Amino acid sequence: MEDKQEFSKYPTKAGRRSLSRSISQSSTDSYSSAASYTDSSDDETSPRDKAQANTHGSNDFCVKNIKQAEFGRREIEIAEQDMSALISLRKRAQGEKPLAGAKIVGCTHITAQTAVLIETLVALGAQCRWTACNIYSTQNEVAAALAETGVPVFAWKGESEDDFWWCIDRCVNTEGWQANMILDDGGDLTHWVYKKYPSVFKKVRGIVEESVTGVHRLYQLSKAGKLCVPAMNVNDSVTKQKFDNLYCCRESILDGLKRTTDIMFGGKQIVVCGYGEVGKGCCTALKALGAIVCITEIDPICALQACMDGFRVVKLSEVIRQMDVVITCTGNKNVVTREQLDRMKNGCIVCNMGHSNTEIDVASLRSPELTWERVRSQVDHIIWPDGKRVVLLAEGRLLNLSCSTVPTFVLSITATTQALALIELFNAPEGRYKQDVYLLPKKMDEYVASLHLPNFDAHLTELSDEQAKYMGLNKNGPFKPNYYRLVLLFFF
Amino acid sequence: MEDKQEFSKYPTKAGRRSLSRSISQSSTDSYSSAASYTDSSDDETSPRDKAQANTHGSNDFCVKNIKQAEFGRREIEIAEQDMSALISLRKRAQGEKPLAGAKIVGCTHITAQTAVLIETLVALGAQCRWTACNIYSTQNEVAAALAETGVPVFAWKGESEDDFWWCIDRCVNTEGWQANMILDDGGDLTHWVYKKYPSVFKKVRGIVEESVTGVHRLYQLSKAGKLCVPAMNVNDSVTKQKFDNLYCCRESILDGLKRTTDIMFGGKQIVVCGYGEVGKGCCTALKALGAIVCITEIDPICALQACMDGFRVVKLSEVIRQMDVVITCTGNKNVVTREQLDRMKNGCIVCNMGHSNTEIDVASLRSPELTWERVRSQVDHIIWPDGKRVVLLAEGRLLNLSCSTVPTFVLSITATTQALALIELFNAPEGRYKQDVYLLPKKMDEYVASLHLPNFDAHLTELSDEQAKYMGLNKNGPFKPNYYRLVLLFFF
Amino acid sequence: MEDKQEFSKYPTKAGRRSLSRSISQSSTDSYSSAASYTDSSDDETSPRDKAQANTHGSNDFCVKNIKQAEFGRREIEIAEQDMSALISLRKRAQGEKPLAGAKIVGCTHITAQTAVLIETLVALGAQCRWTACNIYSTQNEVAAALAETGVPVFAWKGESEDDFWWCIDRCVNTEGWQANMILDDGGDLTHWVYKKYPSVFKKVRGIVEESVTGVHRLYQLSKAGKLCVPAMNVNDSVTKQKFDNLYCCRESILDGLKRTTDIMFGGKQIVVCGYGEVGKGCCTALKALGAIVCITEIDPICALQACMDGFRVVKLSEVIRQMDVVITCTGNKNVVTREQLDRMKNGCIVCNMGHSNTEIDVASLRSPELTWERVRSQVDHIIWPDGKRVVLLAEGRLLNLSCSTVPTFVLSITATTQALALIELFNAPEGRYKQDVYLLPKKMDEYVASLHLPNFDAHLTELSDEQAKYMGLNKNGPFKPNYYRLVLLFFF
Amino acid sequence: MEDKQEFSKYPTKAGRRSLSRSISQSSTDSYSSAASYTDSSDDETSPRDKAQANTHGSNDFCVKNIKQAEFGRREIEIAEQDMSALISLRKRAQGEKPLAGAKIVGCTHITAQTAVLIETLVALGAQCRWTACNIYSTQNEVAAALAETGVPVFAWKGESEDDFWWCIDRCVNTEGWQANMILDDGGDLTHWVYKKYPSVFKKVRGIVEESVTGVHRLYQLSKAGKLCVPAMNVNDSVTKQKFDNLYCCRESILDGLKRTTDIMFGGKQIVVCGYGEVGKGCCTALKALGAIVCITEIDPICALQACMDGFRVVKLSEVIRQMDVVITCTGNKNVVTREQLDRMKNGCIVCNMGHSNTEIDVASLRSPELTWERVRSQVDHIIWPDGKRVVLLAEGRLLNLSCSTVPTFVLSITATTQALALIELFNAPEGRYKQDVYLLPKKMDEYVASLHLPNFDAHLTELSDEQAKYMGLNKNGPFKPNYYRLVLLFFF
Repeated sequence: MEDKQEFSKYPTKAGRRSLSRSISQSSTDSYSSAASYTDSSDDETSPRDKAQANTHGSNDFCVKNIKQAEFGRREIEIAEQDMSALISLRKRAQGEKPLAGAKIVGCTHITAQTAVLIETLVALGAQCRWTACNIYSTQNEVAAALAETGVPVFAWKGESEDDFWWCIDRCVNTEGWQANMILDDGGDLTHWVYKKYPSVFKKVRGIVEESVTGVHRLYQLSKAGKLCVPAMNVNDSVTKQKFDNLYCCRESILDGLKRTTDIMFGGKQIVVCGYGEVGKGCCTALKALGAIVCITEIDPICALQACMDGFRVVKLSEVIRQMDVVITCTGNKNVVTREQLDRMKNGCIVCNMGHSNTEIDVASLRSPELTWERVRSQVDHIIWPDGKRVVLLAEGRLLNLSCSTVPTFVLSITATTQALALIELFNAPEGRYKQDVYLLPKKMDEYVASLHLPNFDAHLTELSDEQAKYMGLNKNGPFKPNYYRLVLLFFF
Repeated sequence: MEDKQEFSKYPTKAGRRSLSRSISQSSTDSYSSAASYTDSSDDETSPRDKAQANTHGSNDFCVKNIKQAEFGRREIEIAEQDMSALISLRKRAQGEKPLAGAKIVGCTHITAQTAVLIETLVALGAQCRWTACNIYSTQNEVAAALAETGVPVFAWKGESEDDFWWCIDRCVNTEGWQANMILDDGGDLTHWVYKKYPSVFKKVRGIVEESVTGVHRLYQLSKAGKLCVPAMNVNDSVTKQKFDNLYCCRESILDGLKRTTDIMFGGKQIVVCGYGEVGKGCCTALKALGAIVCITEIDPICALQACMDGFRVVKLSEVIRQMDVVITCTGNKNVVTREQLDRMKNGCIVCNMGHSNTEIDVASLRSPELTWERVRSQVDHIIWPDGKRVVLLAEGRLLNLSCSTVPTFVLSITATTQALALIELFNAPEGRYKQDVYLLPKKMDEYVASLHLPNFDAHLTELSDEQAKYMGLNKNGPFKPNYYRLVLLFFF
Repeated sequence: MEDKQEFSKYPTKAGRRSLSRSISQSSTDSYSSAASYTDSSDDETSPRDKAQANTHGSNDFCVKNIKQAEFGRREIEIAEQDMSALISLRKRAQGEKPLAGAKIVGCTHITAQTAVLIETLVALGAQCRWTACNIYSTQNEVAAALAETGVPVFAWKGESEDDFWWCIDRCVNTEGWQANMILDDGGDLTHWVYKKYPSVFKKVRGIVEESVTGVHRLYQLSKAGKLCVPAMNVNDSVTKQKFDNLYCCRESILDGLKRTTDIMFGGKQIVVCGYGEVGKGCCTALKALGAIVCITEIDPICALQACMDGFRVVKLSEVIRQMDVVITCTGNKNVVTREQLDRMKNGCIVCNMGHSNTEIDVASLRSPELTWERVRSQVDHIIWPDGKRVVLLAEGRLLNLSCSTVPTFVLSITATTQALALIELFNAPEGRYKQDVYLLPKKMDEYVASLHLPNFDAHLTELSDEQAKYMGLNKNGPFKPNYYRLVLLFFF
Repeated sequence: MEDKQEFSKYPTKAGRRSLSRSISQSSTDSYSSAASYTDSSDDETSPRDKAQANTHGSNDFCVKNIKQAEFGRREIEIAEQDMSALISLRKRAQGEKPLAGAKIVGCTHITAQTAVLIETLVALGAQCRWTACNIYSTQNEVAAALAETGVPVFAWKGESEDDFWWCIDRCVNTEGWQANMILDDGGDLTHWVYKKYPSVFKKVRGIVEESVTGVHRLYQLSKAGKLCVPAMNVNDSVTKQKFDNLYCCRESILDGLKRTTDIMFGGKQIVVCGYGEVGKGCCTALKALGAIVCITEIDPICALQACMDGFRVVKLSEVIRQMDVVITCTGNKNVVTREQLDRMKNGCIVCNMGHSNTEIDVASLRSPELTWERVRSQVDHIIWPDGKRVVLLAEGRLLNLSCSTVPTFVLSITATTQALALIELFNAPEGRYKQDVYLLPKKMDEYVASLHLPNFDAHLTELSDEQAKYMGLNKNGPFKPNYYRLVLLFFF
């Protein structure tokens, strides 16, 4: 009882909820390239009102249109090409079925990449039921393809708030089947189980959580002593952090700016606010393409790094008039103020690669003297009385989620980590994990990385016995201690 | 008489014609971001059958829908922001009107950027009539906006072959107005005038030609002694060459690959065939984003440059099995053969940044044992009997035209060069230009460059008298001799 | 009593001792540019046998030649130009004299940069006595300049083992003066005090230790419960680690290879063993200058990073035949084996940027069938019976210490950190530090960084009250938590 | 008669002569690493006064000390390792001896690399007599090694002016031997023959000239109609230009600055004056190592390139106060004026990578209010009355010649080009070359490049018959037209 209340406190904070939603909303776009192929936009019937069955006669699912399954299957096959780590996991674990007996209820974005994960879990022996963590991001064809092969999926693009919880409920609450593992992205599924079906936790061996928000909720529960099963924080694994931040942003900053504005990077004056991993990734890419980049920082150590990497460290106000592009990567709020927006030159592009939608003071732009003009999807011109235009991307939400795609390869790393976390929690001997939030053991992190090396035809060197002894390491790893991970959130 | 025949020989070569078309066709995509906003696709009436008038009562134009003018005006305004060189040209030449008396008939892509050029010519005193050089590339809204302000425009997206020549004819052949300047892109307009209205050339002071194909036609005419007016080859100006090749390709290779395949560049093994300017641009960008790039070359000097720049020089057959991406930039034919396509690994991406559509032997892939699957616009999977997929982009046509946009800034350089060429030819004293093909004088090339420097807040240094004397240069340029331009086509 | 024994166990391990020496020996070269200017090489008299006095009449010192003071002073002044952080520290702390009452005994390399540190300590109120931590590295002129201004210095270039300990003893054991602070580099001074004058520790407020070896000794003492005063581990401060590894190696790999071999980097095939911070620095620089770099790794996460950064990950044996240069950065032993040395091609260069002198199996090369030929200082040709030559640099010792210089700017960071550590330990309230080994508080690390920002004209941004609250940070830092530092030794 | 006068006019211009010398003087340093090994500095006897014979009994040479031959031989062997193009030329041409009958008199720097060239010429059938083009640059040991193997060499380090001409005379004027080919570097040998032995030209088949100055002299002669034999301008070959400028400067700017000042590049603010090939090379390298680079330009096209490459284009006066380093690469004079030197900040480094010693107004610094202090070889501190120091390198002469080494690989390209030019001129059928100055045929340029590709294990692709036809090229090259070379001096 108290557990539920404890947990439910959190989502009632409207700010957080809407934040979660606004991220979700923006992430719609990132899947748009494939999502709308076969959608017949005039099909107004709610999936909840349709009677559908797959070719095997099952109707334990709810998707937009089961007939789109074939198209979805092809999207899944395309994704498989870049997710060879999961495919190889299927092969390696084929005999032993490490998830035999696992009943996993999942709540994630439903995309071709997720489908590869789900089908891997099934191949490893699990039974899965799935729902969407976001009302916009579902690829209907993929959901259909999953439903066609017999995975009970409850999701479609454009769900209402009510649909959203209905789908989660249908996923959890089914006769003759009770989940013993939870895979969540955002914490909504976990929240629902806490609130409605607390007894489920008696059987659950663990929760694997993907998102910052969800992990935050779990730590809160744990702190309050209300977490009743072990949970694995997948968000903070090294591989995910490094790839999502440095490497992924290196590519998505270019992609996001290009797709929205067709900007030529060469010679552009760009200020990047914040020189953490995200900022470093952005700066590297922009400099490489001939932009003239300067940075702002509050931390002298990061500032010194920027200097050594060849970027001028400035205050935003000093340079704002000259800038062609302003990019925020700080995790802070109001990093770009109305006063600075007022001083930007005509045509200046402003966007956010950091966290949530607080970094640019967009609210201050919604005032009567300024005119907003939507010129393209995700692109607004804010027009000052004197005719000056500032180009605001994604209304200040995350550019990389809103205006560029996430490469399948990055999603493969996350999905592989999730799969290993599920295997670990499901098979861990009694007592290895308590009712707490855990990071994936270092060795598993290394295993995720090693599963992706064949993609690059990379050949790892093995320690000789003599060398392992000299270094005090096990020949099979881990090669770095576990505690280094704490640092990654505060990485320079 | 003979002139016409001479000229008309050329377009009858089917290969060339279809080449010209296939480029045009592909260039459609590059303008797609804006082109389809207000199109009501169900409006099936041919513009030729519509009675339209602008708000000033004129009906001397033929566009899709004059009511789209307002939307088109906004696109033009957006383009103006990145074309400040033309705007500054308007200001500098405002008093003297260097094109007063000029009657220019033009045939180019009709886009927001062209509109900025046309309106600049008008601001400098010219009268203009305009038509499209491509049946797909017209932005209907922009055509409407031009027609609304009184420029007789004859063009719409999706013209038939018959429409195409009808529009050209309407442009040239109008009562009480005879062109004295021609601005052409591809040579079709010039061809039409040669064939139908040769007497027009008596008044024409010059032709400005933009395209490789059109310039080639003019040189053929000149060689045959049939060129009856001076012509300016704008295609081979330094600024255009440098920007279109090195700098533009540096950005468009990333953009084109990303938009079509969402590829992650980091760690990808990529072979670039050809290390000329285009190849250098591609290699620089890909390496900067973490790809592992090797090159093929036939010329030992370019090969040695590749070595010094840090790229392994290989034969395609030696590495083809390991490659993730194959990019052609040679200007040659069958650089990627069927045998090599057979040996590629599953998922390998193949595309062309070079010249025309000959570099990849695409014809060899149209054989019964292979299955083609169109997975996205401009993306085909070619499927081998064993299930291997090769990802072919733009059917082997130019990736940068088909799958990425051309930045306005680059188009600004071309448009400014065209404007200056028109001014030069129109105002040149009798005898400066004979009936031959000319390159823009070096000094004008430098002027085009200098007009674009303010975009970058770049400050040029001026020679002191003493320094100019020491160097043997005029303080105002040219700073390099004229003949250097010959070399640019064979640039290392 | 026991303390002494405990401590003295360590140095008796011959390997460690000689390692310490061999590093020292090699570091001689790094100061060679200035060290030999005024040396009269025929002056064979031992400084211990000379009667010298400075111009103030003091003879409480022992240097090579007090008359070289003026030359040394100029070297110090040159160094001051790049050590503005210490100069600004002098200014900021001038009034309060935070080291008033401090009696510091120091044992470090004696160079112009150290002199700037010592004179800063004096300016802050301290009394100092100084000796050299290395028998070869003393810049005699600088020692003379320090002695001339009244700092008791006991050091010269080319001390014997006996001289070395005699100097330390003269430093510590002087009438009417007893040290209350120790600044050590290598632990020899600390060891001597433990062994000979344990009672000194009653007054000592703390030890500041610079080197890996010395820190290792202190942790051993602490573990054994024998550490009787607080100690500050300066070696593992963030700024030092980042600068000494990534940034410094980025420059010194180029410098070291160039000075020894005049190699042209463009197009060279280079394998770097190990992709930690040192390896990353080397790879970045070599790639930037056109070398074709591949790496070897044992850790899959670092290997994946190398992939994403654009380096092929290989096993050394696979590529050894093709390589022009082999560089070790692993911290491991026998990374390059005799068998691999046998397979290298003629002219292959082998060198070590990693740790100590164990990475290349140099011992295996000292066999009768191979001829060693010293071709330049620090450069040996090892000649195989068939005439093949392998170029071994610095006999496998650290290239960056042996064959390139350490920029004054990097030494400034270390020296500033040492000064702040001394101030912190000397002024810390009773109880803040126990008898343990400490890392510099994060905030002080940030302070060191901030003192160096003016060198780059870098302007730090300050958090607003609102932002600080949002982030949960103090406006003046620290901006990162303390524990992140643990990770730096295992940094990716 | 007139010819001689014509030619001799030139060297009488004192400025030119001393320029030539001052370059020579500085080039001393570039060979210093090896030059002084075995010199016994107390041997004061002039080589002209010594009676020496090699082990074969010949005394037809004049070197410092024939006994140093063995040391010189080793230096030659080391150089051979990086000059495999010449070695392979020896092998390819071994049977046919294309220089059989050639009697070559040569005047160049005498270094290990030149020795490899000379011994290649001998291996191809030529007889050679050699002298030095510079009074400081001779490596005595190498001269001894050549003399020992029977090549008449007349050169030593530290010749007087009189010695210089005496050596040339001894080289040319010998009984029973008359040169039929001339290889010159600087034109002094050619000048001497013109002046003293004009009849020699009756037999001479051609002159191969290496230096800018010498080529300039030849063009003057040709213009005046006084050139009486064909001459080959080796200075302007593509490979030499590209390597000497872009690639070589990319490395030597780092090397030259590091060896003289131990500067750390990261974060340094550097202005590069001039963005031609040399400037581009410097900027690329400095940016890659983390410097913040801006440029000055007079040519808007180069300025626009700098923008696109990511460098701010500024006027020197605007930024001079902030700069840490100022580098000139313009070919112009007084690019850095006294007024700008006055405004530099304390510690600013000033150096020249451009042409001759005119770019920095060094003369203006030789005024009484400024103090010069030589702090290291090639490094002067200029001290202002207020104590400010400016660090001037190589007294404003060429940094790359004075303070860094030229990689053997670059010298190999030059030497191979010289060898091929000699073969071409010696074997050319009557009438192919007139009494004019020629560039090496494009195909030979490509051949030089191809001989160097094996160094990089580079594999050239061959055109198929079909492809060659499509491109209108011969399968064996040339792949670029001849005239492109004119442009290279004005290359962007």
